Order: sequence, then C-alpha cells, then structure tokens
Amino acid sequence: MSKMLSKTDTFMGCECPFDEAEIVMFSAPFDSTTSFRPGARFAGGAIRQNSFGIESYSPYQKKDLFDLKIMDAGDLELPFGNTQRTLDTIGQQTTEILESGKKPFMIGGEHLVTLGALSPVAKKYPELHILHFDAHADLRDDYLGERLSHATVMRRAWEILGDKRIYQGGIRSGDSREFKFAEEHTIMSKFNLNRMENFIRALEGKPVYFSLDLDILDPSIFAGTGTPEAGGVTFKELHHAVLLMKDLNIVGCDVVELAPHYDQSGISTMVACKIIREILMVMS
Amino acid sequence: MSKMLSKTDTFMGCECPFDEAEIVMFSAPFDSTTSFRPGARFAGGAIRQNSFGIESYSPYQKKDLFDLKIMDAGDLELPFGNTQRTLDTIGQQTTEILESGKKPFMIGGEHLVTLGALSPVAKKYPELHILHFDAHADLRDDYLGERLSHATVMRRAWEILGDKRIYQGGIRSGDSREFKFAEEHTIMSKFNLNRMENFIRALEGKPVYFSLDLDILDPSIFAGTGTPEAGGVTFKELHHAVLLMKDLNIVGCDVVELAPHYDQSGISTMVACKIIREILMVMS
Amino acid sequence: MSKMLSKTDTFMGCECPFDEAEIVMFSAPFDSTTSFRPGARFAGGAIRQNSFGIESYSPYQKKDLFDLKIMDAGDLELPFGNTQRTLDTIGQQTTEILESGKKPFMIGGEHLVTLGALSPVAKKYPELHILHFDAHADLRDDYLGERLSHATVMRRAWEILGDKRIYQGGIRSGDSREFKFAEEHTIMSKFNLNRMENFIRALEGKPVYFSLDLDILDPSIFAGTGTPEAGGVTFKELHHAVLLMKDLNIVGCDVVELAPHYDQSGISTMVACKIIREILMVMS
Amino acid sequence: MSKMLSKTDTFMGCECPFDEAEIVMFSAPFDSTTSFRPGARFAGGAIRQNSFGIESYSPYQKKDLFDLKIMDAGDLELPFGNTQRTLDTIGQQTTEILESGKKPFMIGGEHLVTLGALSPVAKKYPELHILHFDAHADLRDDYLGERLSHATVMRRAWEILGDKRIYQGGIRSGDSREFKFAEEHTIMSKFNLNRMENFIRALEGKPVYFSLDLDILDPSIFAGTGTPEAGGVTFKELHHAVLLMKDLNIVGCDVVELAPHYDQSGISTMVACKIIREILMVMS
Amino acid sequence: MSKMLSKTDTFMGCECPFDEAEIVMFSAPFDSTTSFRPGARFAGGAIRQNSFGIESYSPYQKKDLFDLKIMDAGDLELPFGNTQRTLDTIGQQTTEILESGKKPFMIGGEHLVTLGALSPVAKKYPELHILHFDAHADLRDDYLGERLSHATVMRRAWEILGDKRIYQGGIRSGDSREFKFAEEHTIMSKFNLNRMENFIRALEGKPVYFSLDLDILDPSIFAGTGTPEAGGVTFKELHHAVLLMKDLNIVGCDVVELAPHYDQSGISTMVACKIIREILMVMS
Amino acid sequence: MSKMLSKTDTFMGCECPFDEAEIVMFSAPFDSTTSFRPGARFAGGAIRQNSFGIESYSPYQKKDLFDLKIMDAGDLELPFGNTQRTLDTIGQQTTEILESGKKPFMIGGEHLVTLGALSPVAKKYPELHILHFDAHADLRDDYLGERLSHATVMRRAWEILGDKRIYQGGIRSGDSREFKFAEEHTIMSKFNLNRMENFIRALEGKPVYFSLDLDILDPSIFAGTGTPEAGGVTFKELHHAVLLMKDLNIVGCDVVELAPHYDQSGISTMVACKIIREILMVMS
Repeated sequence: MSKMLSKTDTFMGCECPFDEAEIVMFSAPFDSTTSFRPGARFAGGAIRQNSFGIESYSPYQKKDLFDLKIMDAGDLELPFGNTQRTLDTIGQQTTEILESGKKPFMIGGEHLVTLGALSPVAKKYPELHILHFDAHADLRDDYLGERLSHATVMRRAWEILGDKRIYQGGIRSGDSREFKFAEEHTIMSKFNLNRMENFIRALEGKPVYFSLDLDILDPSIFAGTGTPEAGGVTFKELHHAVLLMKDLNIVGCDVVELAPHYDQSGISTMVACKIIREILMVMS
Repeated sequence: MSKMLSKTDTFMGCECPFDEAEIVMFSAPFDSTTSFRPGARFAGGAIRQNSFGIESYSPYQKKDLFDLKIMDAGDLELPFGNTQRTLDTIGQQTTEILESGKKPFMIGGEHLVTLGALSPVAKKYPELHILHFDAHADLRDDYLGERLSHATVMRRAWEILGDKRIYQGGIRSGDSREFKFAEEHTIMSKFNLNRMENFIRALEGKPVYFSLDLDILDPSIFAGTGTPEAGGVTFKELHHAVLLMKDLNIVGCDVVELAPHYDQSGISTMVACKIIREILMVMS
Repeated sequence: MSKMLSKTDTFMGCECPFDEAEIVMFSAPFDSTTSFRPGARFAGGAIRQNSFGIESYSPYQKKDLFDLKIMDAGDLELPFGNTQRTLDTIGQQTTEILESGKKPFMIGGEHLVTLGALSPVAKKYPELHILHFDAHADLRDDYLGERLSHATVMRRAWEILGDKRIYQGGIRSGDSREFKFAEEHTIMSKFNLNRMENFIRALEGKPVYFSLDLDILDPSIFAGTGTPEAGGVTFKELHHAVLLMKDLNIVGCDVVELAPHYDQSGISTMVACKIIREILMVMS
Repeated sequence: MSKMLSKTDTFMGCECPFDEAEIVMFSAPFDSTTSFRPGARFAGGAIRQNSFGIESYSPYQKKDLFDLKIMDAGDLELPFGNTQRTLDTIGQQTTEILESGKKPFMIGGEHLVTLGALSPVAKKYPELHILHFDAHADLRDDYLGERLSHATVMRRAWEILGDKRIYQGGIRSGDSREFKFAEEHTIMSKFNLNRMENFIRALEGKPVYFSLDLDILDPSIFAGTGTPEAGGVTFKELHHAVLLMKDLNIVGCDVVELAPHYDQSGISTMVACKIIREILMVMS
Repeated sequence: MSKMLSKTDTFMGCECPFDEAEIVMFSAPFDSTTSFRPGARFAGGAIRQNSFGIESYSPYQKKDLFDLKIMDAGDLELPFGNTQRTLDTIGQQTTEILESGKKPFMIGGEHLVTLGALSPVAKKYPELHILHFDAHADLRDDYLGERLSHATVMRRAWEILGDKRIYQGGIRSGDSREFKFAEEHTIMSKFNLNRMENFIRALEGKPVYFSLDLDILDPSIFAGTGTPEAGGVTFKELHHAVLLMKDLNIVGCDVVELAPHYDQSGISTMVACKIIREILMVMS
Repeated sequence: MSKMLSKTDTFMGCECPFDEAEIVMFSAPFDSTTSFRPGARFAGGAIRQNSFGIESYSPYQKKDLFDLKIMDAGDLELPFGNTQRTLDTIGQQTTEILESGKKPFMIGGEHLVTLGALSPVAKKYPELHILHFDAHADLRDDYLGERLSHATVMRRAWEILGDKRIYQGGIRSGDSREFKFAEEHTIMSKFNLNRMENFIRALEGKPVYFSLDLDILDPSIFAGTGTPEAGGVTFKELHHAVLLMKDLNIVGCDVVELAPHYDQSGISTMVACKIIREILMVMS
C-alpha cells in the first residue's frame, strides 16, 4: 500500500537513495550570528516547498534533474543557539557524505555554516580552493569581539587554506581592512564577476569548494536576505558564471543567506531554487 | 547510517507507521472552485512547515501529541484542474484508511474536498451525521451552474445523508434560499456556536464526521482564507466547542480553507496548526 | 449589443438609476489632513472592487441589497490638495442628492470629508443630530494651527449644530481638553458603545446623520486605517449597534478612514463592505 | 444632472463609445488551470484601478492615449469554474468586436484565455501569425492529462494555425519535448528577444495576433505572477520590442498572467499598465 | 541656535534629564535564543518611531505622559551574539539606574533579556516578586541543552527568587514538566488573567518586577512576535489588568517579544506603544 | 555617566557637532501634494533606523563616512498640512545652515520640499544650476489648479533660476507640454543618464544643487515610492553618475520620494541609505 508511505518533501523530488547518490543535499537552519536581519534558518523549508514551481529540465544545459543522482537529506537538527556545536554537527554530516565518496551540497542558513562543511572538505582535498561569490568580503578577524560570525567566515577559511586559495567575486561591502587583507591574501573581483573567466582558468584541474552567498545578487532580484546591498549582479550574470563552472572540479558546495520572510512575493525563494538546480547540473 | 535517510516533513513529526496508526492525516491541495480568492492548495505545506512552532503538549487536554498514534501521509497528488477525478482520488485515499480500521483526517484545500472524503465514510457508517462549522451555509444547489463547488458541498452531503443529519454552526453568510433550505433540512446554529451543547447531546453515540471550515473564525484571527466574513467566532469559542467534542464518536474529520498567502503574518497558519493539534487529541 | 456597454464597477452592483434611487452613494478620495498614516484616498476603489466577495443577502436583517433602491455614483473628482474646494465639491454633490429627495451615503477618505456633507444636510434638517462612532474625539479647535483637519471635524460640526446634538460612541483617544469639551457640549460613550440603547431612545424621531469612523473598531479586525488605536469595539459590537439604528431616521451617512494599503490581507476592506451593506439596509 | 451618472472605472478613462472605437478592451477573470500560484483573475480590476497612476502621454511614442479611439468594456462575466464555457464566452465577445471591424484587446486571466480569443481572430484572418512573448513554451500536448491548460495553450494554437506561424520570444522554461517541438514547428528566440528584428521582418505585412505573457519579464520587475521564472528580459528590452511592432499589422492582442496579490508593492500592476498603454499606441 | 541640536528620537518624546527622571527606559536589541521566528531585536526602534502615532494623554487614567518624569535612554549597544555579555551589559545599565534611585523600564528584545535586568533588581529588593504575563511558561530547565534561553528565563528567575515568588498569568503553552513545575513552585493563572485580582491582593505592599511578554495577547491583535499562540487575552483584558496594578509597588519592568517585521500592518507596534504608555502611568 | 545620555538616532551615527560640520543633514516629513500614493513623510525615520545595516566604508570611493564632518539634525517639525509654511520652515533651516558656511543635505518627503531649500541656496549662489534626476519632468505650471505641487517643482525652480540652468536626467514621464517646455528652457537627458558626462563638463566650476528624486531608479530596485514608473535606470547607472559628480561643486542636495511602506522588503530604504552615503562622500 505504497501511497500510505509518508511522502517526502525534498528539493524538486530529489530522492535518490543514499547509496546510489552522487550528490547529497542537506540544509542547515542556523542564523544566530546574523548582524542585521535574521531569518535564514527558514531557507531550507521554503526552498523545498517552492521547488515544484520550476521545471526539472534546464533549457540552458539541456539536462533534466530527474536524470541525475541526487539525494536531499532534509534539514539538519542543530543544537539551537550553540555556534560551535552547530558547526560540529555540520562537519559530521559532511564527513559522512565525503567518506561515502559523494559530494556535499548544503543549503544555509547564514554564511557561517560554510565553516562547518569546509573543514572536512579541506581535510579530504589538501589542494582545495574556494570560489566565493558574495556582496560582502567576510574577511574580518572578529566581529564585535566574536571570531565565529557570518562576517568572519572567509577569514577563518583562509586560516585553513592559506594565501591565494580563495577566489572572491562580486564583493562590494566591507571595511577598509578587509579590502586591504584581500589584496594580500585572496584573489578578488570587486563589484562584479568580470574576472570570472580568469578565475576559471586559474582553478581548472583543482578541487574547488563553491560557496554562494546569494546576496551577491542585486536586491532587485533577491530582496529576501539579511544584509541586502544595492549594486549587485543580475541573475543572468550569476547564471552565466555558474555555467562557466562546468569545467571545474567542484567537490562541495553551499548556497546561503536566503531569509525568505523579507521577500513576501516569494521571488527570492524561486531564484534560489533555480540557481540550485543549475549548480546541481554543473556539478554532475 | 540513519541520518542519511531523507527526513520527512510531517505535521509536528507525526510519523507513526501506517500499520500502528489510529489516525491517518493527509492533505488535498485543491482550490479550483474557489469563487473569490484562490490559494487553499498551499495549506498542507504551510501547516506542516510551521507546525514545529507550537508545542506537542496541550495544557488544555493534558495530552502530548507524541503519545498518540498518528501518521501524516503528506499531500495527495491530485489530477490538476479536474474536479471529479480529484474527488475520486480523495475517495480512494479515504477508503484505504477506513478499510484498515483507521480514521481519516484531511487538510484542505477548499471545502469541496469534503465531498471526496465523505462518500466512503458515509458508506461505512450508514448512521453518519455531520458536524459542520463554517461562516457559509454551503447549501446552494448549484453555483453559477456548477453543482460541484465549495458553495454547494453541504447540499451534496445532504443528498447523501438526508434530512436533519447535518449540524451547522457559526453560519453567517448565504443567500435566502440556503437559509430556507436549512430551516427544513439541517440543524443550524446561526452566527455563533451557542447551540453547541445541544448539538453534542443530540450527536452523542452516533458516528460523526467533523468538517471544519476555518472561516468560521473571525477574520481578526483568521485572515488567510478565500472568502473572509466578519463577525465570526473567536479562537476561544471554537476551541471550547472542540473540547466539548471529546464525548463524540468522530470517525472522520477535515479542516479546510486556509489560504496562507493572504495572511503574511503567518498567524492563520499557526491557528490552523493549534486547532488541528487539539482536534487530533479529541479524536484519540 | 448591450454587452459592449462599458460595465460599471459599483458597490455590489448597486446601479439603480438616479431617479428611482432612495440612497445615493459616492466616495470622496481625500486624505490631505491625515496626521499619521495617509492613504484613505484609496478606500472607494478598494471597497467597490472587493464588494463582490460578500453576499447581497443579510441573514441578520433578512433583506437582500438587490431589492433596495441604491445607486452608487462612484468616486468624486476632487480638486487635489485644496481642502476648502474639496469640501465645497462634496457639499454640491450632497446638495444635489438632497434636493432630489434622496439620502446621501458617502465613503471617505479621511474624516474631514464629513464636514462637506454635513453642511447641506444640516441646512435641510434644522433639527439634525449626529451619531458619531470613532476611536478619536475629533474635538480639537485646531490641529497644529489648522482648523480644517480630521482631528477637528466634530468641533466644526458642533459649531454648526450646537450643544448636545452630537452623540459620540467608542471614543478612547484625544487630549484632555477634548474630553473636557465633550463633557460640556456633546454626549459621549467613552471606550465602548455600552450607552447605545440610551442614544437610540434619545435620538428617536429626530433626523440623524450617522458618521462612522471605522477606527472605532479594534485594530485586530481593522488594521487598515491611518491612526489605529488598540482597545476598540469588536465587529459584533459595532454590528449590534448598527442593527439598533433601524428605529432611527437616518437622513445621511458616511463611512470613513479605511486606508486599504496598511492591511494587505484585505480584511479591513471586507469589513468595510459588510458594515456598509448592513447600514444601507438599516437606512432603507 | 450628469454628475449623477454612475462613473465608469475604465483603463485610464478609455471610454470611447463602441461605435467609434478602433480598439475594444475587455478583461477575462479566469485562472482555473494555473498550476502553481493562482490569482490572475484579479488582474483586470487591479489594472483599471491603478491605471490613473501613470500619464496618458507617452514620451517614447509622442502620442496621448486620449487622442486614440479606445473603449474599455470591463470584466467579462465568466461561467465560473467551467473552462470550455469560459473560452466560448471569450470567443463570443471577440467575435462581436471583430464583426464590427474593431480590434480586440484582452487582459487576462491566465494564459489559456488566449485560446478563446484566438479562434475567431484566426477565422477572420486565415493568414494569421502569432507573436508570443513568454517565459514558458506552453507547448505541452497535455498537462497532467488536461488538454486545456495554461501550459498547453500554444500547442492548441499550433493546431489551429499550423507550422511556423508562431513566433516565440523570451522562452526559458519547459520540458525537453516542448523545446524539441518548437524546433520543428515554431520559431523561437530562446532566453531573450534578441531575434526580434528578424521576427519583425518576417511578420511584416501579415496579420499578427500578439500574446504577451507578462512573465517574460524578469521577476525583479514583475513579481506578481503565477509561475515566476528568473532570468527574464528587462522592462526596457520588452518595451523596445513593443516599439518595433509599430510596423506590424496587429489585429488582436492579449496581455496575461498578472496575479496582483503576489506583489504587494503594486509594481507589477503598474508595469502592466504602462506596457498596455504602449501597446495600445503601437496598435492605433 | 537650538534647532541645530541633533533631535533625539525617544519614546513619545520622553526626554526628561536623567537626574530628574523617575523612570529610565532603555531597549535591549537581542534575540539570539529565539527558537522560532527571530526579529525582536528591532522592537526598540520600531516602538520609538511609531510612538508619535498615539496621544500622550490617557483618557483611562486621566494622566498625560508629558507630566511624568521619564527619560528614554535609547538602544543599548550589546556585544552581538554573546549571550552572557549581553546579560551583563543589561545588568550594568539596570544597576546604574537603580543606584540613582530610579526605576528601570526595559523594552526587549526576546524574553531572556529579563534575566539581565532582574538580577540587580533582586539584589536591591530582597523581597522581590515577579508578575509575569506570557503565553509561555518559560520554566524549562534547559532548551536543547542551553540554560540561557527565552524558554528558560522564569526558571532562572526562580533560582534567584525561590518558591512562590513568581505570579504567572495567561500561560497557555509549555511542556508537561513546566506545568508540573509551576504547580509546585510558582503561582499560575492558566489561559487567562482571571486570577488577577487575587494576584494584586497577594502582591500588595511588596516590591514587584513586572515582566510583560506581549505574546500573552491573542495573535489577532498581536501578530508581530516570535512564537504566536492562539487563544490569548484581548487588549482590553490586558489593559484592565495593567490598570489594576496602580496599587502595586512596581520597582522595575520590561516589555518584550515584539518582532515588528512579522506584522506589516504596524498594529503590533502600535499596541506595544499604547500598553507601554499605560504601564508608565501606572508606575508613576 | 555618559551612557545615560539619551542616545541619538542619526544617519549612520553622523553626530559631528554643528560648529565642526561641513554638511548638515535634516529630513522634511511632508507629502501633502502627492497625487498617487502618499507616505514619503516616513522616509527620514526609516532611513535613519536602517542605515546601520550598511557599512560606513565605501569600497567604490575608498572613504569612510566616519572620517567626514557630517551632522544629522533629524526630522524638521513642520506645520502639518500647510504647504507654504512648510516651505518657509525648510527655508529657515537651510538659511541657517548656509549662513554658517555649511552645506545643506535634505531628505524628503515628496519633491516639493526642494523648493523650500532651493530658494536660500539660489540667493547665496546667483550662478546656481540644478542637477535634477527624476522619472518625471515636474515642469507643469500647475497641477489641478495648484501651483505648489510635487509635479510643478522644477517649473517653480525655473522661475527662480531662468533658462538652461536646470539639467534633467532620466525623465520618462510627463505630459506633452512639459516635454515641449523642457526643449526650450531646460537641458534634458530623456529616459536615461547617457548624457551625464556632457552634463558634468557643462556644470564644472559652477555652484550646483543636486536634487535626486529616487524614482529615477527602476521600480525593480526602488518600489517604495509614490509614483513608480517602469523603465528607469539601474542602481549601478545612478551610482556611476553620482561618482562622476566628484568634480562638481555641489553646494546643496536633496534626496526625495522614498515612501517606505510600499516596499515591505525594506530594499528601497536600504537603496536610499547607500546612495546617500555615496553622495555625502562625493560632496565632502
């Protein structure tokens, strides 16, 4: 009596069994360090629920999501309000996925969740590079005294990976020290993704972790986020950059900072669904 | 590696296996005959996603939902835009539940979905009575020429059950013929639930199907519905009536007409979650 | 080819020809003196457009609006931004209606529009009394130096009608001088409508202008207004008071201060539609 | 006493008498086959009510709408919930307009309404071609078993008109079979309107029906629609394409899929108003 | 040139100099432990900005706020994301106020902020009792392992004050252990404020800290909060209880859990403004 | 005890003492002549409250706002509902600022407020030119009979300054006479800012008043305004034009027509904050 099995509410019906999956998605409902407008904790549920509003077929890539081997494992249960244990739980989930030879794909939550997933990926791939799209540099050493913050996550990543391993695109906000730090320690395409083709050439052949803070998008198309910053890239520019990544070896990915309540038109959530579909196809 | 099973998104975690369940919930995402503001199709998902915002324990009934045997089977897949086949699909689901000796609990969708579930329940229980809470009489013979409509559902139910089997509470809208029909063929508590204790006495010992159109509530507390009607009952009045039902033999239930988009504060959805929790406890 | 006549968008289809009409409705899209949240100019259009969401039949009064002789003449074209000429235009419209032996029914706009309609009504009926429902006393002599303001409208009305001719209900906001003025010059039921039955007895047999500022309602049911004030009456309390007026000789009426944009659930507009339907029936 | 005629609420005051009109507008409040977010039924009223927020003069075309001969006949009364009879009613209205030598201009509703208007236009103009702007191909043979659906409307149109008569622009969503079908049977400019100048050349001199699904626009500028799809054209791109049409013989037109409730800023409705003004000028 | 002083944006213009003030208000923008919907951090700013929408005069108490000696000291700068240091900062602010012989009045933030203010108040007044209005018992020992949480705040308060010192009203949510704990260790009026007159009698003559979680209100009137719970008290019931407190010796107060973004009608913020005005008058 | 000073709520903390300030900001909460959607009165408060959501450092200009000498003097108290006295009050404030050798920077309110500030600036700088960015020409001689209106403000400015002193960019709405007037009396870049570099060359060395009506932006990025007009410039285009102004001698500035309630995502307010930051840096 199969109809009486509880139906699973997954991203676009991605219900490939774990053993057969190539990519394993999960979401991390955490936003405790958000400094302006909290609410990214609700992103995973909103994305799953609205994902059936778009097609599984991409006319851009001429692929169908239903032909790919993707499992959506749902929301992690996180130890609420405890930042370090949250990162540990994300790390365990990521480790399990990596040890089974699969690729992790995390939906945030705020940007700090990246740190939890990055650690095991970096351990597995010593040559790991990060491709980081964002409005904000996220390179502070601390934020109001806290070292674990959405505003420090790429500084922490740099401590793991070292110099010139982080490629940053779209950055248009930060303090002066962050931009100075970037000049010396990361590779940054300020304000836009114009240097993306150079990035692709530099990263080809290397293991790459792709961290997409959706606030790289202009708030006209992505209002539903904690720290919206005018002057961002269009959806087409972001999408074009994603399509270019088909030549990269992306070994892990996250898509963060959708805070769905702030965009009651639902557009931000639909945008997240579409770019996730396209990234999944690029990674497969 | 149990964490990697796809997590199920059910009402407050009601994941009792089918075989052990006493009550089986499902939702029917249908709103094709809504005459004013459509959108009740989104109720099931919204209710599941927000149900974790309330406690599983009821201080009113001193019960915990986790102690009850309830399975939430998720959204039905309905043949979109085909009213008759939609009712048939609901009927099959309900039949399956009934044949296994369990009680069906349907989340609408608009009110016409009641008709799909009612038929098999009435077949199983020839003595079936309906307890119908609503702002609208729903007793039209046809609505703009259509006989299958949210505005005709109780007329269709009357054709199945016959005279004086439908107990209606809170009714404050309809045309003059509907109120005339009610005087002759149903039992109606106009405008409020003041006759509820009489209803309980009359229904005691009989098999009862409880159909709750949430627009019986005043729009101050329930704005998210297709045809809001001022002058409704308060949440406390509705809740009090539900608590009185503990002495009834409720053999099936539906809760319909939440259209979550119209109440962007989320309150209507939270109200639906709480009253569903309370009804489930009354039925157990 | 009648279908090709431009269809008229009137309140619930009230399209009785002027010559046959008993009541003539019109709306006055003016909100220039609103001190807090402007937007009452949009009330007329919102009310017309949403009025088809309720029934023409009232089960409370057992009447159908379609049996009454009501014409809705639409939005006045007002000289934008000029308060005195706006009041003059309202006055001319009202005079025309009165001279034809019909009753004016105005939809605001903000409360100052009452003054425009009141003058010709008072001229026609020297014994005129006002029944004024509101959260605010509106008895200031001036508001920040301006004598024509939504906050002074009942003071101006008193200048026309004199002492003890204004019966005020539901008042719960004002400065201390307004309440002092009321003690001496008007009849006031503070905070609620509990003295309504006394009011009815006192007003019986006299010509009455009914001015309903919808913010008398609690903001739980009526959020869409310029100066919401918690602690108001429920819809049922307001409705009960309206039903009591069936014994009064209401010679003119206005319903003001719906500002639909502030309540995006649409409930405030639906509430306005329903109470207007009920008042129209009471006046017929 | 002309002021007492019921005022008509038409698109920007387009009240040319039928006999003198060159173009006759009407709206079709239908959204029964919408698969994701319903509500396009409310488009006509919203467009009329907000149309006074823009100027009648176009600095782009140096024309004034008040100089053109346009009648707005209002909302059709449709047999609610009955798809075939809805299409028949639209067909009768269109036939009447065509038989009087005027051009029909329909405001949706969802996209299926196009089918109702298209049939009589195609009958009158055997050489008819369609210019179809949309995010979605709408070329499915059936949608979940239904042949009359917003997702099949251009397939049905193809059955009427035959191969290579449908010019599609902006298409960025569909399943793989739809894109395959398009390669063989229609002319498609995928993702954008870059081939628009070719389209114009090919269509010059032929009778053209222009069907504008507003979701061709990027959701950044048009959030208020049932199936928003990121990556659309900008308003300037769409507007530029419309201006190019001045050399075409447009014999009928529709503008569909505004669902105003989903964009509570009102921008989507204002966008619809402006593009309708521009199309009306191009058609005159 | 006084106009060129930076104007201060305070609650209703409460700008009494510190030395002369009887009550000192401040707000604590903290919501890190909110388990469902975060955003209470924005309450202070929203309340100040909208407070000019109500009158300074209370017709209920016949007092004017401008006659009282109240200073609003603005938002505290809190060490973001660090719960313990946040409580310490609140504690220092409160201590300073107490040491100057003034009464602290804190606007939350989420409910945990109460703990910061309570400690110094309890130190100054060894006989301190708490009057706690809330939908939730807040008596958990820990919440998902964390002892400092909005769900544990009254348990922590009990650890400071001891048995039968906490009077709780309106409680309608919690787990079974919390209600059991309440039976033994606090005084609780479940579901409503019906025992308020008893509470007043019991508390008369004692120093009382009043902690008002605004979610005690029904969500019909207070939608803008993190964990809305249907079945709450009306504004009038809450207001009546506040007026009864005029006979108590309230030595400190907080009003918490307004999360303004969730109620875009602005009503929740206006409700907070009015009840704060009334409490300030009761305390003076 | 400095913490107990009332905290000032200024734009991004711009609290330079008046005597030391180079630029003095203030806001003018006026929207009485708004013809479509009122609400610009709330802009100043919304901008101040949300300004802490962006960084003080601009990576575009490599400057930090905290290094500049800017005072924010808060909202003017305007004589409500009296247009002429409002303009006079703005004029006095501006005069005071100018006489102290500082530059005025006004936040609207609707566009008519420009007239109040312009008069004293033009008196001080007889060679004054205006750089005017807007969707609307604002060149009517009167608007529905009123000469003081947001739709006439640049006509009034022309009466002060004379021919060819007003440079207009982005204009895409008006009636035909306004565009004819512009051809003869102003310099206009229709539809976009493409002629901006010419403007800069022409204006170099002259005293310039910059009046920015934010509705020059496309409604996709700026929905929160009274008369949104599709087809505007992007944020990047506006920002680029602002950066070009660094070579101009801007002696006064205003930023007008944010009506925050219409964009409940908060994006319009954030956009205003960022462009104000950038203009302040260009002016310093």
